[in-house]
Amino acid sequence: MISNTNSKAIDRFKKLQQKIVSVDTMFKAIIAKDTAALSKGITLIESTQYDHSEKAQQLVEMCLPHANNSVRIGITGVPGVGKSTFIEALGNLLLQKGKKVAILAIDPSSSISHGSILGDKTRMESLVRSNDAFIRPSPSGKSLGGVAQKTRESIILCEAAGYDVIIIETVGVGQSETAVHSMVDFFLLLKLAGAGDELQGIKRGIIEMADALVINKADGDNFIPAQKAKNQFTKALHLYPLAQSSWTPKVLTCSAMENTGIEDVWKLILKYLEITSTNGFFEKNRTQQNKFWLLQTIEEQLKTSFYNNIKVKDKLASQIDAVQKHKITPFTAAKYLLEISKDDLG
Amino acid sequence: MISNTNSKAIDRFKKLQQKIVSVDTMFKAIIAKDTAALSKGITLIESTQYDHSEKAQQLVEMCLPHANNSVRIGITGVPGVGKSTFIEALGNLLLQKGKKVAILAIDPSSSISHGSILGDKTRMESLVRSNDAFIRPSPSGKSLGGVAQKTRESIILCEAAGYDVIIIETVGVGQSETAVHSMVDFFLLLKLAGAGDELQGIKRGIIEMADALVINKADGDNFIPAQKAKNQFTKALHLYPLAQSSWTPKVLTCSAMENTGIEDVWKLILKYLEITSTNGFFEKNRTQQNKFWLLQTIEEQLKTSFYNNIKVKDKLASQIDAVQKHKITPFTAAKYLLEISKDDLG
Repeated sequence: MISNTNSKAIDRFKKLQQKIVSVDTMFKAIIAKDTAALSKGITLIESTQYDHSEKAQQLVEMCLPHANNSVRIGITGVPGVGKSTFIEALGNLLLQKGKKVAILAIDPSSSISHGSILGDKTRMESLVRSNDAFIRPSPSGKSLGGVAQKTRESIILCEAAGYDVIIIETVGVGQSETAVHSMVDFFLLLKLAGAGDELQGIKRGIIEMADALVINKADGDNFIPAQKAKNQFTKALHLYPLAQSSWTPKVLTCSAMENTGIEDVWKLILKYLEITSTNGFFEKNRTQQNKFWLLQTIEEQLKTSFYNNIKVKDKLASQIDAVQKHKITPFTAAKYLLEISKDDLG
Repeated sequence: MISNTNSKAIDRFKKLQQKIVSVDTMFKAIIAKDTAALSKGITLIESTQYDHSEKAQQLVEMCLPHANNSVRIGITGVPGVGKSTFIEALGNLLLQKGKKVAILAIDPSSSISHGSILGDKTRMESLVRSNDAFIRPSPSGKSLGGVAQKTRESIILCEAAGYDVIIIETVGVGQSETAVHSMVDFFLLLKLAGAGDELQGIKRGIIEMADALVINKADGDNFIPAQKAKNQFTKALHLYPLAQSSWTPKVLTCSAMENTGIEDVWKLILKYLEITSTNGFFEKNRTQQNKFWLLQTIEEQLKTSFYNNIKVKDKLASQIDAVQKHKITPFTAAKYLLEISKDDLG
């Protein structure tokens, strides 16, 4: 008779064996559009176990030739702007058009994961029920760099699984917008009429990243103010320098709740894709993004090693303090910290 | 009789001796407001010789307790916007008000150094003649990081020499604006009416950094268009998120040529200083800037070492190529390059 402990050990061994064979199986299932396999694949990517990371890389590399065939859309906006309702409305429209839609979130405070934390089952309910929609909350992780890498690799898997439109959701108040902007083809900022950005808590610089500004909740008493805001922003955006894409950001209004204006948003995205495909920006941008992620990953890794160096950890705070009290220059402090970090290697 | 060669060697020895005693002497002369010493000090900072860099650091550290007492103003705008005429007009106004003004340039294409390269003596002529104005072209240097460090250290020396207002000039088309923005209290963007930014070649993102937008050449036939542009930009800037400083960027018009509107620019800067001193942003910003430069210097140094690693140099281009052709992910390439860079240390 096998003891309970032994039986558990055998179970663990079986699971381990399954894992060993699973990368190839997982890959085949993913390209066969198996949603469960896609989910497992993303879980593998998000795993922090060392042996998983090796396998995750293999899986991503295998999917790579099957990827790069979707439209990647970043959607940002502060909490309360109606992001999940908007994404649901846009998602449903795309499903009606026969598209397969994947929705990924990049930060833990996004409406997707927020919904799941609160157990709020009504968020994106109609999408959850569809076989052609795939919804995935934000990966947990301490550093934005790590989370962004996982999201970016998950995009590859979703594309290999045949999703035509990948929506990356983020909250426009933190550091994640630049990361999202660097992994999407089209970046959409969702706003409200009336309340200024200072009230909406949005970060400076985000407006200049946006390819479209969509004023949501343009319904009821809010209809006229939304049109007014649209006109103001349209004028303002014309004063901006032209983007590399030669695309002048457009302003639209919609009501995700009443499902009005959503079709126009999609038409605008199609127009953008047409223009940037014709002028070559679409491909050029993806190529630049790949290079960006390569260099970005290197630079983040270099920083992580440096700031985790035990001697640096010990002295960093006192050096910052001395610099801030004008006792030493930032350059002297930097030189000192770089020197002690090298000592540690010897 | 001493041979010519020997006499040269003795000269060199004497010069070396002078250098050895000179840091302390230089420091004393600088705080005694000796312009020649200030010039020599900045030359020491800009020197690429290793033993000079040590001395330069000593000098900057000595000046540090005497620094931090000026207003640092960044001025940017594309070539042709009238930067040198504007700076001359503002500089003269400040001299009339009994201020001492130092003008430093951060990039080689700035109007100051451009003037000196072309031997164009008429640029800022009236300032050149004044004892209370100090003008210094951009330091030469390959990396922006290095040039920015030198400029930032030169600010310390100028402040120790009693300059009340430090103007840092840059051209709004490159990478240097972020660097300048991170070393000044007030950032001013000079513009022209009529021509859009796309024609003026200004970079996206700069408008959002500016504390004031000044539309120059508001004279003659251009007067009305300048007022119109002012109104448009004023409306547009109100749509921006509020800055950390709680300051809403203002738009003014001026004619540096006809010397109109310059006093209003200065009044605006004083207003900004009043507000940000009261709400604590002024000090907080300088403290943040010091920390920024410390971390920035470290990170640039880490990158420089990495990209100069012989194995990395050898493989970087082929890895970028493989990433851009979707053969490997950016993360795999980054991992590989980081690994080979470590091999080199063993």
